[in-house]
This record gives sequence, C-alpha cells and structure tokens, in this order.
Amino acid sequence: MTAQLYCFGESGNAYKCALTLTLTKSEWEPVYVDFFNGATRTPEFRELNPMGEVPVFVDGDTTLSQSGVIQDYISSKTGKLGGRSAAERREILRWIFWDNHKLSGLAGSTRFLMNFLPEEKRPAGVIPYQQGRLAASYKILETHLTGRSWIVGDGPTIADTACCGYLYYPEPFGFVRSDWPAIDAWMSRLSGLDGWAAPYDLMPNAPADSA
Amino acid sequence: MTAQLYCFGESGNAYKCALTLTLTKSEWEPVYVDFFNGATRTPEFRELNPMGEVPVFVDGDTTLSQSGVIQDYISSKTGKLGGRSAAERREILRWIFWDNHKLSGLAGSTRFLMNFLPEEKRPAGVIPYQQGRLAASYKILETHLTGRSWIVGDGPTIADTACCGYLYYPEPFGFVRSDWPAIDAWMSRLSGLDGWAAPYDLMPNAPADSA
Repeated sequence: MTAQLYCFGESGNAYKCALTLTLTKSEWEPVYVDFFNGATRTPEFRELNPMGEVPVFVDGDTTLSQSGVIQDYISSKTGKLGGRSAAERREILRWIFWDNHKLSGLAGSTRFLMNFLPEEKRPAGVIPYQQGRLAASYKILETHLTGRSWIVGDGPTIADTACCGYLYYPEPFGFVRSDWPAIDAWMSRLSGLDGWAAPYDLMPNAPADSA
Repeated sequence: MTAQLYCFGESGNAYKCALTLTLTKSEWEPVYVDFFNGATRTPEFRELNPMGEVPVFVDGDTTLSQSGVIQDYISSKTGKLGGRSAAERREILRWIFWDNHKLSGLAGSTRFLMNFLPEEKRPAGVIPYQQGRLAASYKILETHLTGRSWIVGDGPTIADTACCGYLYYPEPFGFVRSDWPAIDAWMSRLSGLDGWAAPYDLMPNAPADSA
C-alpha cells in the first residue's frame, strides 16, 4: 500500500515531510485533513494522533507524527538526505530541533495569526513579539549559511527540508527573503533540486485565506 | 577529561541534560554560563554554539547543542534511558520534538517573561496567549499519562527527562501541578528515581529573580 501523508496545503510542518518524500523519490500520496474546519480535533483524528496535529505519516504498520521523526524515518528508509557519519547525523538533528523550536515553531504561529485568523481574534502584542524572536533566528540561519551551500555537509539533507518549511509560502509573516542573501541563495539551490515543488503544489487545498 | 555541560540553574533545557546525565550515572561537571549578564551573546560563546543557547555539552572532541541531541547522545553512549526497539526510539524522539515545540518551547519563554523580565518590559498579551497554548499541551500530556507510568514503554526514558524540563521549577508560569493528576503522579515517579535532583540542586547559581 502506498504510504500516506496526512496533511493540508497551509501546513509548513507537513510541507517538510512532503518535500522530503518528493526529493527522495518516495512513493506516497497526500490525505487531506480539513484543519480549518476542525478535522484535527475529531475523535477519529485523535486516535490517529493524540497530539492533534498534522503531519501524520502512515507506512504500512508504522504510524508516525512530528515532522522531524517522519523526516528522519524517510531519510533512513531511502538512504537519502541523511548524514554520512554519526557526527553529521547529530548535526542534522541539531538543526531540525533548532528549526522546530526557534524557526518553524514561531513562523508557523505568526503566519497563522496574521493570515488565517480574523483580525478581531488576533491576540494583541503576540505578532511583534514573535517577529522579534524570529529576526534573531533568521540571523542565525543567515550567518550559518554564509559561505555554505547546505546546512550540514556538502549536500542537501533533512536539515534543509526542515528549516525551509515556512519560508516558501506566499502569505506574509515578516520574513522578507531579499533581506537575507545567504538564505535567499540557499532557497534557490533547494528549489533547483530535481523534484522540488512549492507547498501548494505538493499538498491539497488552496490557502485558507482565499476560501 | 570529564564531560562538561554548559548551563545555568534557570535553564529548563539544560536541566533536561543534567537530569539525563545524573540518572544515567554519567561523569560530568557543570560549567556556569552567566546568561542574565549576556554570556551567551559573547563572541567566545558564539564560537562554542553559534545558536547562542545553552545547553552545550562537550565530551572530548564532541561538542553538541540542542537538548534533544545531547539527551540522545548520552542515552546512546550509556545504553540507558533509551528505547528497546526502532519503534520505541522513534516514539521517544516524537515526544522530545513535541516537548521542544509545544511544551518547553512555550513554558520556557512564558516563565522567562513572568519571572526574569522586569514587569515594564513584558510584551502585552503574550503571556495569556502562550498560557492558552500551554493548557492544550498539559492536556495532551495528562491524557497520554493517564493509565501509563512513563511516556514511552515501561520505564523512564529521555522522553520523560525532556517533558519534565520546566515542570519542577518553583517560579510560576501557569502550570499548577495539582490540576493534572496523571502528570503529578508521573512527576513523583520521576523524582523518586535514584539520582534525581531538582534543577537548582543540579546546576549552578540561584534563581535570577532573587539576585
């Protein structure tokens, strides 16, 4: 049976997995989760993932959640986008944790608040606070990528497909690609890879804000 | 040479590593990082960790950052607090990612804003927003621990030493242990383990707010 990725177009965390699947030439199909109409809060979905989040990846008897775990599983299974040594694998994991905590963790909720929540429901003060923290994260990534082609080692890895998770989306959340030349060049290298596709071309449904 | 954990008492992310080290009976020593006086922003520290964060773990030629990576390294090296199968190891990693993203990631900054930042500098609206998200996370952990002794499998693992990272601290950030009976019982099981110690007993310096 073809492996299934439970996802929706707007989810950058799901995009990390979809991009990892397509770049490793894996066989997979997306299963649309209607997040904006409460699908992740249903008992059926909670049975699949008690954390109530996409992405969820089902490959035969294996059901996984958390994008970092799914990415690691796909990389191990295909032998692609991984590290070449224990030290490289730890370095990859380090950047995926950093991304989850300091980049995607903040970018995802900032983009949600700015684009997918009615203006009157946006909690005051949160967006500028998170954008301030994000600016520090962009700077760390920019510094790291200056003089480097990829985040770890000399080729693309799941550290790259993690850190870019929210950066290709069209909805504004404060990230201006042209402000960060090393990030910009890295994103161009990534999007030049065979099989790369933008989030809304890889996963079902149009942006929630145009609904 | 004895392994060194760069840390400070207030850091729950460092505590996860310190607790993992002590519960695995590892040889280690803490190296105090004077975070509240800017030590993580110095060029010397940035050379050690360009992400500008504690914990950093130095074991011979290996220098690691990100608590999840350090915990995984210690567990692998000692053969303790790990999973017994590939599936258990993935499940452990899943909970560590979840913690970093949805529990510690929010608890750490909420506690910082509420206790270590002067009231006039606290960004309006952020604390209640984050506490609302945290309540959803406590509920997920409470549900998971109901009927279970440990987060993964039938013994303590680094998933437990990750998720508890901020929960034993005395400073208020909205977590009330008695509100969550399954979390409370799990915390008692953890603190009953041989070698367990509270954060300020494992890492140097008194709380910043009493300075």
